[in-house]
Amino acid sequence: MPERAIGVFDSGVGGLTVLRELRSQVPDEALVYLGDTARVPYGTKSSLTVLKYAHEAARFLLAQRVKLLVVACNTATAVALDELRDRYLLPVIGVIEPGARRALEVTRNGRVGVIGTEGTVRSGAYERALRAVCPGVEVFAAACPLFVPLAEEGWAGHDIARLAAREYLAPLLDQGIDTLVLGCTHYPLLKVILQEVVGPGVQLVDSARETAKAVACRLAENQLLHQAASPSPPRYFVTDIPDRFVRVGGSFLGEPLQRVTTVSLD
Amino acid sequence: MPERAIGVFDSGVGGLTVLRELRSQVPDEALVYLGDTARVPYGTKSSLTVLKYAHEAARFLLAQRVKLLVVACNTATAVALDELRDRYLLPVIGVIEPGARRALEVTRNGRVGVIGTEGTVRSGAYERALRAVCPGVEVFAAACPLFVPLAEEGWAGHDIARLAAREYLAPLLDQGIDTLVLGCTHYPLLKVILQEVVGPGVQLVDSARETAKAVACRLAENQLLHQAASPSPPRYFVTDIPDRFVRVGGSFLGEPLQRVTTVSLD
Repeated sequence: MPERAIGVFDSGVGGLTVLRELRSQVPDEALVYLGDTARVPYGTKSSLTVLKYAHEAARFLLAQRVKLLVVACNTATAVALDELRDRYLLPVIGVIEPGARRALEVTRNGRVGVIGTEGTVRSGAYERALRAVCPGVEVFAAACPLFVPLAEEGWAGHDIARLAAREYLAPLLDQGIDTLVLGCTHYPLLKVILQEVVGPGVQLVDSARETAKAVACRLAENQLLHQAASPSPPRYFVTDIPDRFVRVGGSFLGEPLQRVTTVSLD
Repeated sequence: MPERAIGVFDSGVGGLTVLRELRSQVPDEALVYLGDTARVPYGTKSSLTVLKYAHEAARFLLAQRVKLLVVACNTATAVALDELRDRYLLPVIGVIEPGARRALEVTRNGRVGVIGTEGTVRSGAYERALRAVCPGVEVFAAACPLFVPLAEEGWAGHDIARLAAREYLAPLLDQGIDTLVLGCTHYPLLKVILQEVVGPGVQLVDSARETAKAVACRLAENQLLHQAASPSPPRYFVTDIPDRFVRVGGSFLGEPLQRVTTVSLD
């Protein structure tokens, strides 16, 4: 079992920020990534539709005989994590709980901001995860639809990103948050500008990084950690042709993407 | 036959700008609109994937017994128009040819700019349509991925839209264009800011408006124009739940959306 791969899925390139953290935190693990690029994004779609897509993605990765499944998409985690855990026998880790736990560790005033896609925010999943651990926490959430195209456009450092961040974050800052959860796997690319806009008094929580930590923990607990002399490079599957995934994904992964195969899920 | 509806499809809300023009230019016609909101957007997806989606949309509308099909999506027109015309017997009108023809009427210096999604620009469909009529025309195209989320966010008048427009249009203005084709059905919402950025020396061509003109012409030529005492309101079908379509679509249509039904295409 330990030699089996970790399966990671997202609607597109965003989950590569989670894969990048996994490569850094559990470097000996084999990794299989699925990006549902024919149907990206999930963030503006209904729960029913996202649930269907998440099941299809999970079944595909199970067929790759993975030992653990990472739902590297906040929207899919918000909508589908419980159902995936009920349905399948392997451990399933989402990106919301790890970020929420970390936010509760770092907040001093109990006022936590969360930013994400429309789907993630509408689901209220972060509020639930935060309140499940700390019922008194105050949560202020904002959907930031422009951040995904800004990250994919390579404009993370541009004035346009700065203006959009100010616009989206002003209401959260008005509420006196001291912690901001990046509740979308695209957002780590915007970290520098987000930190600049929120100022030094607000701590950012990178859910991609926290998720990789949670994966490392879970593997260790279950004696599933792998020690490899020379770990194989990740394999990538996408549901559309790979051109755009390879071109845009490089900046999310921090290195060029190789071994990308197109598959059909429906 | 004349009493049959016109079928209009797009990946989401964008095509509603075409529907709006149809309602103004052929007010007696019954209209059926399909927005493939479960798989929106098409603009970042491959030709093969968009072709598959376009066929599914066309088959759905044919089953609604429409007399004419409007592909109200530049990406789908770029990729699928010829195949749809070959495959089906009814007239099929896309959004590219009408805009291209209008651009050639208004340009004085033969230097035409085209803006659209990545898919539309990559396809080179506008260049082909323009050069088919006027081989000597110079065409300068730019993909503007941020314009769709800006329009959907209701930020068409915001400084962010102005900055993004300056960024995207500068290379086209450097080329001395005197005409700019809005090659995406979302872009009419940004007309005011686009005109401001390009200045009075550049004329905008609204492909939604030109497409409705082409539809009116084609119906008249084929004796398919309908005269109705009281035309029925449009019917809308979407592939995801209607909430977001109804909420965002109102500003595209210019009035509230009613009679929206969810259907499955795959």
